Amino acid sequence: MAKPSLPQGTRDFGPDTVRKRNYIFNTIRNVFELYSFQPLETPAMENIETLMGKYGEEGNQLIFKILKRGEHEKTGEADLALRYDLTVPLARVVAEYKNELPKFFKRYQIQPVWRADRPARGRFREFYQCDVDVLGSRSMVVESELCSAMSAALEKLGFDDFTIRVNHRQALTGMLDRANVPTDKHGDALVALDKLGKIGRDGVMQEFLSRGIAAESATELLSFFEGIASLEHVFRNVPDEVIEQAGSRSLNSTVLGRLLEFVGDHETGARGVDELRQILEFAVAGNIDARIKIDPMLARGLSYYTGTIMEIDVEGIGSLGGGGRYDNLVGMFSSQSVPACGFSLGLERIIVVMTERNMFPSDLASAPAEVMVTIWDDDSIRDSIALASELRRAGLRVDLYPEADKIGKQFKYASLRGIPFVVVMGADEKTRGEVALKDLRSGEQRSIARDDVALAVGEALAKD
Amino acid sequence: MAKPSLPQGTRDFGPDTVRKRNYIFNTIRNVFELYSFQPLETPAMENIETLMGKYGEEGNQLIFKILKRGEHEKTGEADLALRYDLTVPLARVVAEYKNELPKFFKRYQIQPVWRADRPARGRFREFYQCDVDVLGSRSMVVESELCSAMSAALEKLGFDDFTIRVNHRQALTGMLDRANVPTDKHGDALVALDKLGKIGRDGVMQEFLSRGIAAESATELLSFFEGIASLEHVFRNVPDEVIEQAGSRSLNSTVLGRLLEFVGDHETGARGVDELRQILEFAVAGNIDARIKIDPMLARGLSYYTGTIMEIDVEGIGSLGGGGRYDNLVGMFSSQSVPACGFSLGLERIIVVMTERNMFPSDLASAPAEVMVTIWDDDSIRDSIALASELRRAGLRVDLYPEADKIGKQFKYASLRGIPFVVVMGADEKTRGEVALKDLRSGEQRSIARDDVALAVGEALAKD
Repeated sequence: MAKPSLPQGTRDFGPDTVRKRNYIFNTIRNVFELYSFQPLETPAMENIETLMGKYGEEGNQLIFKILKRGEHEKTGEADLALRYDLTVPLARVVAEYKNELPKFFKRYQIQPVWRADRPARGRFREFYQCDVDVLGSRSMVVESELCSAMSAALEKLGFDDFTIRVNHRQALTGMLDRANVPTDKHGDALVALDKLGKIGRDGVMQEFLSRGIAAESATELLSFFEGIASLEHVFRNVPDEVIEQAGSRSLNSTVLGRLLEFVGDHETGARGVDELRQILEFAVAGNIDARIKIDPMLARGLSYYTGTIMEIDVEGIGSLGGGGRYDNLVGMFSSQSVPACGFSLGLERIIVVMTERNMFPSDLASAPAEVMVTIWDDDSIRDSIALASELRRAGLRVDLYPEADKIGKQFKYASLRGIPFVVVMGADEKTRGEVALKDLRSGEQRSIARDDVALAVGEALAKD
Repeated sequence: MAKPSLPQGTRDFGPDTVRKRNYIFNTIRNVFELYSFQPLETPAMENIETLMGKYGEEGNQLIFKILKRGEHEKTGEADLALRYDLTVPLARVVAEYKNELPKFFKRYQIQPVWRADRPARGRFREFYQCDVDVLGSRSMVVESELCSAMSAALEKLGFDDFTIRVNHRQALTGMLDRANVPTDKHGDALVALDKLGKIGRDGVMQEFLSRGIAAESATELLSFFEGIASLEHVFRNVPDEVIEQAGSRSLNSTVLGRLLEFVGDHETGARGVDELRQILEFAVAGNIDARIKIDPMLARGLSYYTGTIMEIDVEGIGSLGGGGRYDNLVGMFSSQSVPACGFSLGLERIIVVMTERNMFPSDLASAPAEVMVTIWDDDSIRDSIALASELRRAGLRVDLYPEADKIGKQFKYASLRGIPFVVVMGADEKTRGEVALKDLRSGEQRSIARDDVALAVGEALAKD
């Protein structure tokens, strides 16, 4: 018989990971509820036509498709597919229940998604996403609330070195138009510019040319971005007091000014820059401006973004998630378009980083029990059951060895599993109305009155 | 454009259900951890050969199968399938990680499963199961621990009228052999007997005959079960004191006595009855015997049970779940057989019953926010953001209306959503350093100092 195995790219999760995940979920959930976001959960499967065509041609290939059932199974056709992200199901929900939902629909959703990506280190075919979105308003208050909620959630998890980079699709359009990049080359230009950090100025110039964009356009854009980068360099190296004394504006305001200058009277571009200005203004009001970085170079891949684009970066780690405004997505399912904006957090990355940085509360990694009750012999099974039951009623986490067995074997079992205390009810102890309590870490063993065990274990644990 | 819709038999879950479910999960989880059960989560998908053939021919049909990807998609073949229950994935995990797991592996698992059943009222294609199992021991202490943990979990949820019915496959075998039912008709006989309550003695006799079982066998079994039923009737109607004064044994002991008498020297049967006797003895020691009902008629469908079978019944509701011992299942994946026993709870039923009986804590059904901050006009957006942010820092759940709008419309929006308080920061109030706080339920409105809002809302909420 072939040894059964996990499907490629998936994982089983034991106690440690489940507890970490639940800790993160609960923390995030509590913060989102302070912001009046409400939980939503959708089925793992959607009708296949709901998902197809929403993620581009490559996305279509990565969707797990479910065979029709019964007599139709033979056709080899699929009618259902597994959730690929949490955004399209949200759009489906909004289109389906439009009339029952509040005018402004604020929901969070924490569920796994499935993608048939080629498995690789840190890339899985089943992984949790945590999305938070607001539907129904075009106001930048939405962006402000989202950034604020996301900041609060990350801070509550213990992150103190993250930045929310913010840019705007329309500002990008303005910049590219201003640099005379033809509209049908905007995508190419963004892909090339996105590599500036990695391949440098010359590399990007190469990319531009090879993608059929004029050298003049490339030069203009590169100079602008280099200007921004040197601004950042200056602000990073000049102490805050000096900047304040000099009466300078913040880096963000300064970048915004440059951006506005660059797009000039390009109408769409100027509108984008103005929305960025509002976001910054609202961030100051909400006291989260230190978290925000206006970044004219940020260009997120997904084609459905229509306005703001955002990404959460942690110093030395990279992106934990991102999002943006997608005012047209719901319109794909409904004649009525609904403005929308949201963030998506990658849970897997967060778990890895928090584990590396030791950010989980220490009691999460606790032993499977605080005390184990042993079984001396077949005749004393009932005594052991009664004691275990009492200790649990006292709130202790108790394991009960399931069989009469050599006591040394039982100690070893408890010790292997990291259970700190064991209780022994031997015949002698029983006659005296006592039990033996052993601390497996120190080896210390003492007799205590049968009725005091819960108390004694409780006290010993409190000392730890 | 066709309106998108949910796949047949699946559901979207809004805030109410998600909160109820999380409440149940947390409650159950905390109880299981007192018993040293550890959480496990497995992927939604398994390799198709892991699932096929484990649930009978009908089960094979009900498994959702996932198409191969990429160039293999065209073949119409499936290589993966969605989790159908939590038991087979557990068996796969145990076979896969045998050497890394503790000798006694106690795990709980709370995850959705998928079955392509014909959708019907109360029957879904995606639903949560909650399983708790112990692997590695043949001792009846395992059954005792499982019944105790299950009782404690249900009691913690507020159930006080449930019974765990317990029977034994080998006792059933003994009974049927004793009544001269041929071995190949045991299944038929159990199906027929299972209907006694519904179709009565004559109906069951008919079923026996039509299934080719002799009338004499039927008569013998029916007389035995009727004897048990009349015993139950007597015990139910005679006050406990009278039974105690008469020195009678409990109903369970009396039933066990009858059962032992019936199976006589049938070796397998007697072994089964003896295990039932141990379970009862351990239940007395663990003080849960009032929850246990030895029920010789219980015959659960699943063919993989090898010993104890159990079912949890709630007065007037029916089954909330069940389980039993399945010592051979892991052996299907591994040369080594591993004894195992467990319970599976149906979450959907529990939510329905708890909702009908009003068993959820009242604060679960709370409004989406405790207070809503309105936006007076475009110039005051920043003031509103700053206030909302302060109130949240004070721990209040706060909604912020996302746009400047007619104040009446904003009140109506809050009121529709059941938010009790709104805060208004008009120009006049601002000049005076005040805000208006309105209780939307009483209509009462008062001015309070800007800095006292959190306090005032907190106090008003505490009064509710």
